Amino acid sequence: MLRFRTRSVKLFRRAHHAQIGTGVVKSLRLGMIGGGQLARMSLAPATALNVDLTVLCRSFSEAAALAWPDIMLGSPDSEEALSVVARRCDVITFDHELIDTVITARLEAEGSRFAPSTAVLSISQSKVLQRRRFAELELPLPPFAVIEPGGDVGGIARFAAVHGAPLMVKADRGGYDGRGVWEASTVDEATSICQQLSDRSVAAVLEALMPLDLEVAILVARSWSGEIAVWPLVETVQVDGMLREPRAPALVPQFLQDQAAAIATSIAENLQVVGVLAVEFFVTEQGLLVNEIATRPHNSGHHTIEGSVTSQFEQHLRAVLDLPLGRTTLTAPHVATVNVVGQPNGHAPEQFLASALTVSGAHVHLYGKSSRPGRKLGHVTVMGDDRNDVLSAARRAAAMLEGEEPDA
Amino acid sequence: MLRFRTRSVKLFRRAHHAQIGTGVVKSLRLGMIGGGQLARMSLAPATALNVDLTVLCRSFSEAAALAWPDIMLGSPDSEEALSVVARRCDVITFDHELIDTVITARLEAEGSRFAPSTAVLSISQSKVLQRRRFAELELPLPPFAVIEPGGDVGGIARFAAVHGAPLMVKADRGGYDGRGVWEASTVDEATSICQQLSDRSVAAVLEALMPLDLEVAILVARSWSGEIAVWPLVETVQVDGMLREPRAPALVPQFLQDQAAAIATSIAENLQVVGVLAVEFFVTEQGLLVNEIATRPHNSGHHTIEGSVTSQFEQHLRAVLDLPLGRTTLTAPHVATVNVVGQPNGHAPEQFLASALTVSGAHVHLYGKSSRPGRKLGHVTVMGDDRNDVLSAARRAAAMLEGEEPDA
Repeated sequence: MLRFRTRSVKLFRRAHHAQIGTGVVKSLRLGMIGGGQLARMSLAPATALNVDLTVLCRSFSEAAALAWPDIMLGSPDSEEALSVVARRCDVITFDHELIDTVITARLEAEGSRFAPSTAVLSISQSKVLQRRRFAELELPLPPFAVIEPGGDVGGIARFAAVHGAPLMVKADRGGYDGRGVWEASTVDEATSICQQLSDRSVAAVLEALMPLDLEVAILVARSWSGEIAVWPLVETVQVDGMLREPRAPALVPQFLQDQAAAIATSIAENLQVVGVLAVEFFVTEQGLLVNEIATRPHNSGHHTIEGSVTSQFEQHLRAVLDLPLGRTTLTAPHVATVNVVGQPNGHAPEQFLASALTVSGAHVHLYGKSSRPGRKLGHVTVMGDDRNDVLSAARRAAAMLEGEEPDA
Repeated sequence: MLRFRTRSVKLFRRAHHAQIGTGVVKSLRLGMIGGGQLARMSLAPATALNVDLTVLCRSFSEAAALAWPDIMLGSPDSEEALSVVARRCDVITFDHELIDTVITARLEAEGSRFAPSTAVLSISQSKVLQRRRFAELELPLPPFAVIEPGGDVGGIARFAAVHGAPLMVKADRGGYDGRGVWEASTVDEATSICQQLSDRSVAAVLEALMPLDLEVAILVARSWSGEIAVWPLVETVQVDGMLREPRAPALVPQFLQDQAAAIATSIAENLQVVGVLAVEFFVTEQGLLVNEIATRPHNSGHHTIEGSVTSQFEQHLRAVLDLPLGRTTLTAPHVATVNVVGQPNGHAPEQFLASALTVSGAHVHLYGKSSRPGRKLGHVTVMGDDRNDVLSAARRAAAMLEGEEPDA
């Protein structure tokens, strides 16, 4: 059941927007599937560029629906909903990649334009397909093995015999923010996890636990026309499997920055990604190893809203609308972003704005979500000349927004 | 006749927002009267801070209504509309100052909270009241005389005898963007203009035409709690009476910057302004002379969206919600903003995004307005190390958006 909020101005606006893009895309009529915080943070650049954006949301309480008028209510899993968005818009993009690619493939065959495409979505949804494609591309990867559902679990013992324990076990699909990833200390434990995934018809990726120096991520955007823009490498600090504290630039030698940019560019070009692509890496003694990708704006790029000449959200819109891409240099020597995460105290971060905004230079972004433990409710970005100062200021403001006492 | 777009999430959001401000204001429920481009540019910070904003618009095609869900349809001149907004919101602020202060005074007496207040609005609406108040405060002013409706037009000749011709004649109220301001080359011409104003019961301010070095403006914000934040002085280039090209910082000696900041602060404190206040100055051989004020975010502050740590739009929200104010330093050595103005060609700037966005570092803001000659349709901001480079880049992108051929 779909509901629309129709507005008479719609036609008026569209009339002005013929023949805009540089090539493939002929208007600014964009559909966004999903109304989470990534969609919400796309609204400011959509307003600035006057993009004619329709957001498909499950309810009016979703993060983007709280801040945008042109909301279509419906499920991202509904073919009917997606096809209505497709009829209204010239291009469709995504707030998240958990989309039924059977539906997008069917609509694509009928002429709808998705950015990223069904082919790219299929890969970004699957850790197994990612690893296989990256192996074909001869990209540096951690040692891994795939255990198919109902497949040979004896492979686990053979993998452990070569690479030792503990092992990382990752569900092929559906995992994010630490979900779908387990550290198994023994072969038996890994086997049990793989068996449970197999029972749900989900493949598993086995991975050697790498001795890490750090984790880094790089963002790249690619437009329909093939224009590419790469941001500086970001250092990512994971807490409980969730990216909590992206810091830019990463303090790594230039050759690693160059290598990451080259890898991200080759993935974007090989997959023909349209939009923003995030590539996460492990930094090990052997150099960079590709961990996984996301084919949309990413948590490791929230610092770009203030910390880059062009934010990942604006760049994504420009890329999927086939507009020229913007400059990606940082606007300050150091940028730190710290997530605001729901705590057991259940406090809404809005309550603590008056405290958090006393932190000089703190850029606060709240997502309009109700608090639940572990839920991302917002983030804080601070920029400046000193790497540690900006991180501690961002941490201080984020802690306040999580309801910590200022002295704690 | 009022229409609402009610949304069930409204109550859910409000439940979270008790006890937020530092003092006077207890929630994030804010009303905005008027849905023009200033309201539109307030939406990004309102989203970031999750402000529970209701915008009173005349129609859904207004600039802010195109990009915000919580729109109340009604006239800013309607007491019914304002009183409904007042019942929904804890604080009410304004997109423009052309508000009936009889209505706001009555609502204020019933307990509604306006920022700025009726008293401040009354002064900001009237060039005569401004001049008289500033004269009382012994602020430096150009020589002026007031010709009341039906008053003694002989005063014009006496003023000209002292200060010479040509004279500037300014309507007490209702003028903006060059409207309501005339240069009269003779006493007869000035008399004729004053007579026409008098016939409409409008007073006139006579002013000596000052030999100017340049015009500058300064923005200051003041919160309910009395916290003050001042931005660096801006050089303003007027074309046809409309501010076309604000550049920050103004290239003036530090003592002028200090004097402007002191004057703006004293006005904000004396008038008890809450929100952003813009003060425009003439720079003459005798130093700064106060021209006029605006008690809201101002065209001379659009560069602060990217060019300042805290934008005027976020700061205004923080001030009127009694949240702590943010840092006002520039984010780059030089920032230039150029307005995009409707041309006789009637082109919509959206058509030319693909050209304008090729200008490296151009931050484009479109207001969602249909093109009419002389109408402000958007602006472009560019930041960088070189004062002339940023201006020429901003001009280039703005000219493209106005439909000029790139080679012209």
